[in-house]
Amino acid sequence: MEKYVYFFGGGKAEGDGAMKDVLGGKGAGLAEMTNAGLPVPPGFTIATSGCRLYFENGNRMPEFIASEYQQALDWLEKLLAQELGDPARPLLVSVRSGAKFSMPGMMDTILNLGINDKIAEAFAARTGNPRWAYDSDRRFIQMFGNVVLDIPKEEFERIFDGQKKKRGFKLDTELAPEDLKQIIAGYKSLVRKKTGKDFPQDPRVQLAMAIEAVFRSWYNERAATYRRMNKISDDLGTAVNVQAMVFGNMGATSGTGVGFTRNPATGEKEFYGEFLMNAQGEDVVSGVRTPVHISELEKINRAAYNQLREITTRLEKHYKDVQDFEFTIQEGKLYMLQTRNGKRTGPAAVKIAVEMAKEGLLTPLEALLRVEPEQLNQLLHPVLDESKPVKVLAKGLPASPGAAVGRVVFTADDAVTRGKTQPVILVRAETVPDDIHGMEVAVGILTSRGGMTSHAAVVTRGMGKSCVAGCAEAEVDEKRKQLRIGSKVIKEGDWISLDGSTGRVIEGKASTREPDPTSGDFATLMKWADENRELGVRANADIPRDALAARRYGAEGIGLCRTEHMFFAKERLPHVQRMIMACKDTADAKEAAKYEKERRAALLKLLPMQRKDFFGLFEAMDGLPVTIRTLDPPLHEFLPKREELMVEIAVLEAKRQKGAKLSKLKRLLEVVEGLHEFNPMLGLRGCRLGIMYPEITEMQARAIFEAACDCKKKGIEAKPEVMIPLVGDVKELALQKEIVNRVASEVFKKKGVEVDYLVGTMIELPAAALSAGEIAREAEFFSFGTNDLTQTTFGLSRDDCGKIINVYVSQKIWPADPFAVLDPKRVGRLLKLATKEGRESRAKLKVGICGEHGGDPASIEVCAEAGLDYVSCSPYRVPIARLAAAQSAVKRSAEKVYTTA
Amino acid sequence: MEKYVYFFGGGKAEGDGAMKDVLGGKGAGLAEMTNAGLPVPPGFTIATSGCRLYFENGNRMPEFIASEYQQALDWLEKLLAQELGDPARPLLVSVRSGAKFSMPGMMDTILNLGINDKIAEAFAARTGNPRWAYDSDRRFIQMFGNVVLDIPKEEFERIFDGQKKKRGFKLDTELAPEDLKQIIAGYKSLVRKKTGKDFPQDPRVQLAMAIEAVFRSWYNERAATYRRMNKISDDLGTAVNVQAMVFGNMGATSGTGVGFTRNPATGEKEFYGEFLMNAQGEDVVSGVRTPVHISELEKINRAAYNQLREITTRLEKHYKDVQDFEFTIQEGKLYMLQTRNGKRTGPAAVKIAVEMAKEGLLTPLEALLRVEPEQLNQLLHPVLDESKPVKVLAKGLPASPGAAVGRVVFTADDAVTRGKTQPVILVRAETVPDDIHGMEVAVGILTSRGGMTSHAAVVTRGMGKSCVAGCAEAEVDEKRKQLRIGSKVIKEGDWISLDGSTGRVIEGKASTREPDPTSGDFATLMKWADENRELGVRANADIPRDALAARRYGAEGIGLCRTEHMFFAKERLPHVQRMIMACKDTADAKEAAKYEKERRAALLKLLPMQRKDFFGLFEAMDGLPVTIRTLDPPLHEFLPKREELMVEIAVLEAKRQKGAKLSKLKRLLEVVEGLHEFNPMLGLRGCRLGIMYPEITEMQARAIFEAACDCKKKGIEAKPEVMIPLVGDVKELALQKEIVNRVASEVFKKKGVEVDYLVGTMIELPAAALSAGEIAREAEFFSFGTNDLTQTTFGLSRDDCGKIINVYVSQKIWPADPFAVLDPKRVGRLLKLATKEGRESRAKLKVGICGEHGGDPASIEVCAEAGLDYVSCSPYRVPIARLAAAQSAVKRSAEKVYTTA
Repeated sequence: MEKYVYFFGGGKAEGDGAMKDVLGGKGAGLAEMTNAGLPVPPGFTIATSGCRLYFENGNRMPEFIASEYQQALDWLEKLLAQELGDPARPLLVSVRSGAKFSMPGMMDTILNLGINDKIAEAFAARTGNPRWAYDSDRRFIQMFGNVVLDIPKEEFERIFDGQKKKRGFKLDTELAPEDLKQIIAGYKSLVRKKTGKDFPQDPRVQLAMAIEAVFRSWYNERAATYRRMNKISDDLGTAVNVQAMVFGNMGATSGTGVGFTRNPATGEKEFYGEFLMNAQGEDVVSGVRTPVHISELEKINRAAYNQLREITTRLEKHYKDVQDFEFTIQEGKLYMLQTRNGKRTGPAAVKIAVEMAKEGLLTPLEALLRVEPEQLNQLLHPVLDESKPVKVLAKGLPASPGAAVGRVVFTADDAVTRGKTQPVILVRAETVPDDIHGMEVAVGILTSRGGMTSHAAVVTRGMGKSCVAGCAEAEVDEKRKQLRIGSKVIKEGDWISLDGSTGRVIEGKASTREPDPTSGDFATLMKWADENRELGVRANADIPRDALAARRYGAEGIGLCRTEHMFFAKERLPHVQRMIMACKDTADAKEAAKYEKERRAALLKLLPMQRKDFFGLFEAMDGLPVTIRTLDPPLHEFLPKREELMVEIAVLEAKRQKGAKLSKLKRLLEVVEGLHEFNPMLGLRGCRLGIMYPEITEMQARAIFEAACDCKKKGIEAKPEVMIPLVGDVKELALQKEIVNRVASEVFKKKGVEVDYLVGTMIELPAAALSAGEIAREAEFFSFGTNDLTQTTFGLSRDDCGKIINVYVSQKIWPADPFAVLDPKRVGRLLKLATKEGRESRAKLKVGICGEHGGDPASIEVCAEAGLDYVSCSPYRVPIARLAAAQSAVKRSAEKVYTTA
Repeated sequence: MEKYVYFFGGGKAEGDGAMKDVLGGKGAGLAEMTNAGLPVPPGFTIATSGCRLYFENGNRMPEFIASEYQQALDWLEKLLAQELGDPARPLLVSVRSGAKFSMPGMMDTILNLGINDKIAEAFAARTGNPRWAYDSDRRFIQMFGNVVLDIPKEEFERIFDGQKKKRGFKLDTELAPEDLKQIIAGYKSLVRKKTGKDFPQDPRVQLAMAIEAVFRSWYNERAATYRRMNKISDDLGTAVNVQAMVFGNMGATSGTGVGFTRNPATGEKEFYGEFLMNAQGEDVVSGVRTPVHISELEKINRAAYNQLREITTRLEKHYKDVQDFEFTIQEGKLYMLQTRNGKRTGPAAVKIAVEMAKEGLLTPLEALLRVEPEQLNQLLHPVLDESKPVKVLAKGLPASPGAAVGRVVFTADDAVTRGKTQPVILVRAETVPDDIHGMEVAVGILTSRGGMTSHAAVVTRGMGKSCVAGCAEAEVDEKRKQLRIGSKVIKEGDWISLDGSTGRVIEGKASTREPDPTSGDFATLMKWADENRELGVRANADIPRDALAARRYGAEGIGLCRTEHMFFAKERLPHVQRMIMACKDTADAKEAAKYEKERRAALLKLLPMQRKDFFGLFEAMDGLPVTIRTLDPPLHEFLPKREELMVEIAVLEAKRQKGAKLSKLKRLLEVVEGLHEFNPMLGLRGCRLGIMYPEITEMQARAIFEAACDCKKKGIEAKPEVMIPLVGDVKELALQKEIVNRVASEVFKKKGVEVDYLVGTMIELPAAALSAGEIAREAEFFSFGTNDLTQTTFGLSRDDCGKIINVYVSQKIWPADPFAVLDPKRVGRLLKLATKEGRESRAKLKVGICGEHGGDPASIEVCAEAGLDYVSCSPYRVPIARLAAAQSAVKRSAEKVYTTA
C-alpha cells in the first residue's frame, strides 16, 4: 500500500533528504536534519501525492489519507506526551506547505494550531505569561481566518488597530491581556458574520481544515504565477508539514531568526543572518521591529550560538551548498525549523561555487552545475543598485538585461542628436531596421510592442544593451513625442531608467553599478566550463567592436555576421536604394540588361565598403572562423514605408501642390508598391534575392574574398565561411555556391593568394530540414536559424506574436515562449532529423545554430543532444552559453554513467 | 558495347515500338511500322543517348557515334542502290527530331538533304521536272540556312519575294526554273555574306551539320518552354531520324497528307484528315494552298486510299489508340512517314476512351487511363469556340478554366451595379476577401498579380468561374479605371474575353460554347472511375448553390466549408465589425468583461444567420458529411485597409477639416492599428482567434448544432464535422473541442434531439504534422490544409510568390509551382509522416486533404500513396479528382502485380 504520511522526530525520520519528490523540499530537509540528530521539533509530512489525490478527488481529503495522518498525530502526541485540544498538556502545531521546488512565500502557513479559548487560558495560567497566551490565540484566529476561511486580512487588522486606537497605544506590545481578549472576541464575531458559523474550537477540525487549505493554496494565483515564471510544473502538488510548535516569543530567553551560511548577495564566506529575541518568525520579516545581526546572538546565548554555527556548518557540508536556515530558541533551547539551499545573486553564485570547489567541498564539475547560466548576466551588464529604492512605472518583457538610465527620445534621429551630449533611452512602439543608428547611440530601448525576439530585443541583446520590450501599459505617441503610462505622461527629455533584467520601467534616474566580469572566480569557473564542454561557442556579431567583445567573452568564432546591418549606414543607403530602384521586372531583354547594369553600378560603390567591413571582422577574429551570411531581408526594408509615402502624396495632392517633389515621391511609391508584400517574412528575401539578382551575391562574395586575401597579405588569418540564407531546396544552394566559388577563384587569381573557405547554408525552413540529406550534398556546413525555423514551423510571426504568446503561455498551451526556449517537440525534432540526415550524406558536415536560442541554456541542451558542433549567440551571452554547454556535457556524462551502471 | 544507331527498312527494323526511351516516339513508330510490313521509306535513328552524349561532350559529336551512323548510311545506300551526293542515283534524306514525348513543331526538321547544284541539274534532266528539281534545291538551302546556319527566315523570304516582285508574279507556282536558279544564287550569296563561307555542297558534311543542329534544337527556347509547361524532363534529349525522302511533289500522281483515325476534336469515329496532290508536307500546313478532305483521295487513287484506310485501321488496333499519321504518295505509291497517338480535346478523349472500351479495343481500366484528368475541365466549363479567330492582348496564368466574355469593371461595387444588366469581367491588381460580392456577380476575373493559388484563383475555381491571374503585362489603374496592355488602353465598360484554360486575354467579344458534361460517355467514364477508386472525393463549398453543384458533380461530402465568406455579406459585416471593435486588450477585468459582453451581443446577431447558412448546407448535402471550419482569417480583413484610413485622415487633416467623421475615422484607425500585423499569415488567425475569443467558436458551434437539430426534426440527415484550423499543438485543439462538445450537449438538451458529429483539425502547420501523434489523441479527423502547409514549409507566401515561383520554375529549382502541384519531397513527407503517426495513435482517424492540391491529379497520387481517406476540391474539379483517384488506384494495383510477379 502506498504511504502518504511520514513522521520525523525523536532522532529519526521515516523519510530522508533525497525524497524531495515525495516530501517536498521542506519535509525532506526536516527529515534529513532529524536523522542527523539535529534539534528539530517533531512532526509529520503529508506527501505531495496526497495533494494530487486531494485534487483528483474533487478537492476532498481521501478517507485513507485522513486516517493515516491521524495515526501520525497519535504518534506525535505520544512522543511529546501532549495532546491536541487537551488544556492540561496541549499540543500546538504549525501547518506549512512545502513543494519539491522552493516557492518562498507563495503558499500558505498556519501557526499555533491547536490553541483555543480554554487552552489559551490554561497557558496563561501555567506560564504566567498571559500576554503571550492570548497573543498566540489572537494570531492563530487571524491566520486561520484569513488562510482557511478566506476572510481578508484587513478586516482583522481593522479590529486590531481599532483596539489600539481606542486605548491610545502605538506599539502592539502595549496591548494588555485584556485588550487581546477583546480583540479575540471581535475576531470571532467577524468570523461568525463572514462564515455564518462559529470559529471552530475543536483543534482536530482545525487541523483537517488547515491541511486542506494548504493543499488548495497550491493553486492560488501567486503560486501559479510563480510556477509559470519559474517553469515549475502544475502537476507536482505540495506536501504539508505538520510540526510541533516551538515558541520564540516565550520571553527574554526565547527568540527566532533566519540566516545563511554565506552571504547570498556577495558570496563572501561569512555567517550571515538576523534574529529577534522574544519574537515569532513573522516579526523578523514584517519589519515592525528591527532585527539584530546574528553575531549579536553570541553575546546573548553563547551556547545556542555555537550550537547554531556548528549545526549550520555541518548542514552546509552535508548538502554541499549554502544553507538558508530558520531557527527558534525556546526558553534557551535551540530548535532548527528549516534548512534549504540558499538562493543567491549571480556574483554570489559564482564566488560560492568556485570557493567551495577550492575548499574541496565540491569537485569543479559539481561547482559548474551550481551556477544558473542566466545568473552570469548579472556579472556582464551594469545592473540596478537594488539597495536604493525605485519607483516602478510599468513592467514589460526583460528583453535584454542590464540597467539603463537616460533621457527619453522618440525617434532614431533624435537619439543621434541628443545622444551626442546625454545618455538617451529610445522609446518606440516598435523598432525597425532603420532605427539602427538611433539604437546604436541609445543606452537602452523601451518598446510597447514585440516579444522577446522582436527586432528591438534581438538587436539590443546583440549590442549588450538594456531593453524592455512589449511593455503594453506604455502608450507611445511618437507624433506628440510622449509616453503615457496610466495617467503619467513622460515627455521627450525626461529621465527614465530601465531594468532589462526584470522588465521594470523606472521613473527618473535610478542608481546603477558596474559589475566586474573579469574577476578571478568568474575566470576560474569559465576555465572549468571550457575544459568540460563539447559544444563550441561562437558569437553573432556584425561589426569589429562586437566581434572584439565576443572574443573577450570567449567566443571561438563568429557564427553569424548579418550583412544587412551594414547596408543601413548613412553613406551607404543611397547606393542600396539606387540598386533597389533598378530591381524592376521587364520582359524586354534590353531593358533588363540596362537595369542589371544599373544595379551593378550601385553595387560597385558598396563593394569597397563591404570589403572594409569584412577586413575589420577578419582582423578582430584573426585565426578564428567568421560565418558571413549573404543579404537576407526584403528589399523594401531599405526604402521609406509604403503607407507613409501614400500619406505624403495624398497630403501634397490635397494641398494641390505639384512639381518635382510630388513626382519623385510617386516614382518612389511605384517601386515600393512593386516590392510590397502581404507577408514579407515569407516573401522575396534570403537566397531568393541572390537568385533573382545574382550580382548581389557576387558583390558580397567579392568583398569577402578580397578582404580575406588582403588579410593574408598582412599576416592576418581570415577563415571565411559563406552562409546562404533561407534555402529550401538544394538547387538554390547549388546556384549560389556556384557564384561564390567562381568569384573566389577570380579573386584568388587576381590577388595571387588563396584562403581556405567553406560554403554552407542556414537551415531555417522546414523544407530545408526535411531535405537536409540532399542539401548536405552541396553544403559544407549547416547553421540552424531557429528564429525563422520556429516562425515557419509554428506559422507564427515573431513580430506579431506578443499577445498570442502571452495568452498561450498563461493558458499553458505552451510551456514557454518558443522564441525564447527552443521547442523540443517540433522544432527540435526538425533539428535532430536534419543533423542526422545531413551527416548521413556528408560525414564531416559542420553543424551549428545561430538563432536567438543559441544563447538559451535549455535550448543549448537540445543542441547538445542533437549533436551540434557549436552554438552561436550574442557576444554578451557567450559566457552563459559556455557554462550551459559545460553543464549539458556534465549532466549527459553523468547520465551515461547511470545508464551503463 | 552500347548501340547508338538503329536502322529500319526492307521489312524489318532493329528497334520496335516499345523503345520510345531510346528511339523517341517517331523513331519507335517508324520501327514498329517497318516491322509490321508497312510501306515506310527506310532510314535510321540515332538514339536519345547520342543526344545526351553530344551535350556532355561539349556540343560535339563523339567519334564513335559518327562512325556508327556512317555505317547505317552505307547500309541505307546499299538498300536503295542510291548514294548521297551521286548525281546519277542520288540519295535524298530527311533529318528529323523525335523525343520520347511528342513535342509537335518544337524542334527542327530538314528535308531534301543531299541535294546540291549538280544533283538538282541531274534531277531536272532525268525527271523532266526542272521546276521540282530547282524548287527542292531552293527549299533545302533555305531550311538548312535557317536551321543549321542560324540565318533568319525573313532574309531568305526577302530574296524570294524580290524575285516574284521583279517578275510581277503573285503565286509561288508562277516562278519558272530560271527564276528559281536566280533565287538559289541569291540564297548562296546571302549564306556567304552571313557565314563568311560558301554554302556546303558536300552532302555528307550537310548531314553531319544537320544531325548536330537537330540535337541542339532540344535546347531552343520553344522546346524548353514546351517541356516546362508539359513537365517533360530536360535530361531526356531527342533522337534524330534520318530517312530516305519520298516526294509528294513529283507531279499529278504524287501527293501528301495527314490524318487521324478518329476525329480529334469531337472523338467521332470517322476517317479524318486532309491532303494535297503535287505537294510537300509543309504545303499542307502552311495554308498557301487549301488542302482537300481525305475522303476525296478515294476518287483520285482508290488503291492508295484503301491501303491507307487498311493500314491506319491496323495501326489503331495495334496501338489501341487513335493514330495521328502522315503519308506521302510518290508517283502513285503510298508511303507511311509517321504514326503516333493523336492528341485530342477533352470531349474527344472521353468519347474515344469510352467507345474503344465498348468496341472491346480497351478494357474499362485501360480506358480510364486514356483521359487526362485535366482534360475533363473542357467538359465542365463554357469554352472558347476555337473555330473563330481571336485577338490575344496578353497572357496570364490559366487560373480557373473556361471562357468568359464581359464588360470590364474595376471595383467590386461597380461589378455589382453594372452586373445587374450586363455580363462583367472584374479587373483588379489583385482581389481581396471584400471583393467577394463583386466576384460573385462577375463572369470572369482578371488580375495582374498573384499566382495559381492567389485569392482570385482559389475563389474563382471554387465558383467554377473563369479567371486569368498574374497577368504581368496588364497594368491595372484602379483609380483611373483603366487597364493598359502595352499601348492598348481598355476602359470601364469595354468588352474583353478571357480564356481561363490557357490564360489568354482577348480583345472584344469572343465566341464561346456550352459543353455538355452530362453526356452518356462522360457519365460512363465517371462510373468506371468510381468503381475503381479507393480515395473518396469531397468538395470545398461554402454555400448551398456550390454544395448542390458539387453533389451534381459527384462529391461525396463537403471537405471544407469556409465560414469566413459568410461574414462578408452586406447585412452581416456591421455585426462582424462591431464584434471586432470590442476585441481590445485590457488588464482591467471589469473592462474586459464589458468588451466580452459587447462581442457576445454582436455574435448573437450573427447566430441566426449562420444557423441558416448551415441549415442550407446540411439540406443540400442531406445524408453526406459536411466539414465546417471555424473562423480562420485575421480580423483586420473585415475592416477597412490601414493605409487607406491613414491617407483619408491625413487628407482631411491637410484640408483642416474637423468633426465627427474625422474622429470616427481615427477611432477606427486605432482599432485597425491594434490589429495590424507585419505578417498576417503568421498572426492572429485560425484557432488562435477561438482561443483569444472563445465566444466566436461558441457561436459557430451553436449555429452548427442548432441547424443540425432543426434538420433532423425535418427528416434531413445532417452530418457535421467541426474542423479547427491552424492547430499547432494538441492543447489548442483540446481547448476548442471542449467548447464544441459543451455547446453540442447544451443544444441537444434544448432541442431534445441529438446528431452524430466529429471534431477534428486542419493539419496545415509543420508543427501540427510533427506532433500529429499527440494531436490525434484529440482529433477525430485530420484534413491537410496544404496551401498553408506549403506556405509554412517553404516559408513562401502564396499572395506574394508569383514572381519568385516563375523564376524558380524557369530556372528549374522546382519542377513545378508547389502551390499547384503538391511537393512530394517536403510537404508530401510531412503528409505521410502525420498520417502514419496520427493513425498509430488513433487507428480509425479519418484523413483527408482540403487544400487546392485536392483537385490536382499529381497531388492526388501523393495523397493516395499516403493512404488518405479522401480528397476535397472545388466543385468543378470533383470529376477530375474522381478520375485522377481512379487512375492512381489502377496504376498502383498494376504496380502491385508487377511487384509480386
